[in-house]
Amino acid sequence: MKKPGTLLKSQRERIVRTAARLFAQRGYHAVGMTELQDAVHLGRGALYHHIRSKEDLLFDIAREYISDLADDASAAQQQADARERVRLLGRHLVQKIASHQAELTVCFREVQSLTDARHAEVMALHARYEHAWREAFELGAAQGHFRPYDAIVLKGVLGMYFYSYLWMRPDRAMSPDDISLRFNDMALRMLARDPT
Amino acid sequence: MKKPGTLLKSQRERIVRTAARLFAQRGYHAVGMTELQDAVHLGRGALYHHIRSKEDLLFDIAREYISDLADDASAAQQQADARERVRLLGRHLVQKIASHQAELTVCFREVQSLTDARHAEVMALHARYEHAWREAFELGAAQGHFRPYDAIVLKGVLGMYFYSYLWMRPDRAMSPDDISLRFNDMALRMLARDPT
Repeated sequence: MKKPGTLLKSQRERIVRTAARLFAQRGYHAVGMTELQDAVHLGRGALYHHIRSKEDLLFDIAREYISDLADDASAAQQQADARERVRLLGRHLVQKIASHQAELTVCFREVQSLTDARHAEVMALHARYEHAWREAFELGAAQGHFRPYDAIVLKGVLGMYFYSYLWMRPDRAMSPDDISLRFNDMALRMLARDPT
Repeated sequence: MKKPGTLLKSQRERIVRTAARLFAQRGYHAVGMTELQDAVHLGRGALYHHIRSKEDLLFDIAREYISDLADDASAAQQQADARERVRLLGRHLVQKIASHQAELTVCFREVQSLTDARHAEVMALHARYEHAWREAFELGAAQGHFRPYDAIVLKGVLGMYFYSYLWMRPDRAMSPDDISLRFNDMALRMLARDPT
């Protein structure tokens, strides 16, 4: 049996996921709180018991997936071989994009709609996550596997992965694991010490 | 001396560019027509002489840069060597992102705010542009330079380039040509026949 706290948490999660889906489909500004009430089958009072405002929802949507990714990236630092660390970071990123495509869509589109302090917090999480990739690239250079660290290579590799929120279709024949195998191979080509 | 038609065209271009900058900075929904009037120093009547609605502006912003890119890509098909064709496509793309960063920002964020027919037209231009890259990749495979065509590689390469609209800073020490040299090198690594 679930504890009441767990139930409340999953209720809030359900609201956040539904809001992400609606915002991704129709735009943050186009979706009203009444529409969200209908979609989650809650009255106004019950909905506002869980969230305070539409901007609160946007903040949770923009923060959660990147916060998870930054935590995964910290865990990946246990991996001592830089090439394996890149593969692990890449696999987690593709999996997160596949499972949270609506959240990424909303964040990429609407992050500037957050208040300054919240915008700064979300951007700091992104910077923390990007730094974990940078450390893997620098480690690989020190280990003799990768070329010397280059910020443009970092941006190129991250762009390849992140851009997939725009085209990935989880219902297609290709699984997120298949996509990450191909992307990881390309990332390692981009990073390889000797030019082809 | 400019002909009146030229003057009208440049007036409209000035309005579209200013609108792109405002929409990119503050969000399409947040910017009102009165604010745009002030920014372009035109009265309501003069502004509406050039554009019919805010959505008209969004359509022009989203369509112009990708339409130019699709035209450049058709011209690049004169280039018989697939590697040179990729370098040319890459250089034009980075140059366009640098010169039209506000337009790309607005298009990536707001394309779903267009009416269905206009949305379809903008997406068809993107598909036409993507197809020119695909043809270069297929040509390179036929010429023995590239690995067999793979849609995931195409998406990865385009993601690397397009994602730069989020981080490129034209005022920094690195020029668009420097960035495209690095990106083109990475694209050719991703495409190379023999794995590294």
